Amino acid sequence: MLSPLDHLTQLLAKLPGLGSRSARRIVLYLLKRREGLMVPLAEAMLKASQEVKTCSLCGNLGSHSPCEICADAARDQTTLCIVEDVADLWALERSRAFRGHYHVLGGTLSALEGVRPSDLRIEALLDRLKDGGVKEIILALNATVEGQTTAHYIIERLEPFDVTVSKLAHGLPVGGELDYLDDGTLTAALQARRKFS
Amino acid sequence: MLSPLDHLTQLLAKLPGLGSRSARRIVLYLLKRREGLMVPLAEAMLKASQEVKTCSLCGNLGSHSPCEICADAARDQTTLCIVEDVADLWALERSRAFRGHYHVLGGTLSALEGVRPSDLRIEALLDRLKDGGVKEIILALNATVEGQTTAHYIIERLEPFDVTVSKLAHGLPVGGELDYLDDGTLTAALQARRKFS
Repeated sequence: MLSPLDHLTQLLAKLPGLGSRSARRIVLYLLKRREGLMVPLAEAMLKASQEVKTCSLCGNLGSHSPCEICADAARDQTTLCIVEDVADLWALERSRAFRGHYHVLGGTLSALEGVRPSDLRIEALLDRLKDGGVKEIILALNATVEGQTTAHYIIERLEPFDVTVSKLAHGLPVGGELDYLDDGTLTAALQARRKFS
Repeated sequence: MLSPLDHLTQLLAKLPGLGSRSARRIVLYLLKRREGLMVPLAEAMLKASQEVKTCSLCGNLGSHSPCEICADAARDQTTLCIVEDVADLWALERSRAFRGHYHVLGGTLSALEGVRPSDLRIEALLDRLKDGGVKEIILALNATVEGQTTAHYIIERLEPFDVTVSKLAHGLPVGGELDYLDDGTLTAALQARRKFS
């Protein structure tokens, strides 16, 4: 039987980016702020675990289903951006560069980890295309082997539909230095060079 | 009014070592493991906030007061190790190198942050010495300016008592390389050199 202290430390150490050392540090920090942070944090966690819903349309997480983005009539209904994970959707939203709708796959195909097409929200994606409202699909998947494998699989599945499919551009990150860039990105940036206009 | 998601993310971002990016990552991780991790973690946090006590003798945190260490009759009653924080006590306990008792100060003197002697558990320390049972005091304070200032202050206050006062040795960390050591440590290690015996 673990003490409440050790039990809490063990659970915190399971969070991504934390280990037993940082978990201990957080436990001590919390115990010094029981009313101000520890109890509110625990209650926020319980509340979120009960109230946060997965959007039935796009797979985003939020207080409502359909989510605020799917329910927003002002957004472009004809463009669908496909992302691997909710974190990617949030990153795109923070950039404010995209005003269409999203579709969260919930992962990538991976032979190694046994993730098959049926484990991802691909059928749900095809269902959303059936009424013909979506004209363009942007594949915003990670530039990893798994991300690209998944992109190719989705492109194949999209063939029966009358949609334009595009993917994110490769190139020099804004603020990035050539010196630190890998060869693959540098090659891609060079090949996709654009004329000053 | 923040959504439950944003509220939880904001609170998590207040924890030491976390920022908004890692907080978002943890929120998504938790929401995928609601029954397995999120709810148990919140409950462990509430339980610890209610049940963890500060030891009335040494200032350690644990399920009981006096704590297990203070209550352990097998430990050396004559040696008292003074530490700044509970984290330092735990670090010493993990090393299994010390079998006496502890006294947690709860911080260090700091003119800058307005921490005065009365803010630390110094009177409680002097109270523990009154019955004459303690023969040696080990100052295990951090080798920082604040730690050393506090050590000097405590040494002054200990003068009326018949106790030996020692401090931790400075030197080369075990497994450490000379090459990476700062000058101060190297000088201290050289001055405190010991004969092979």
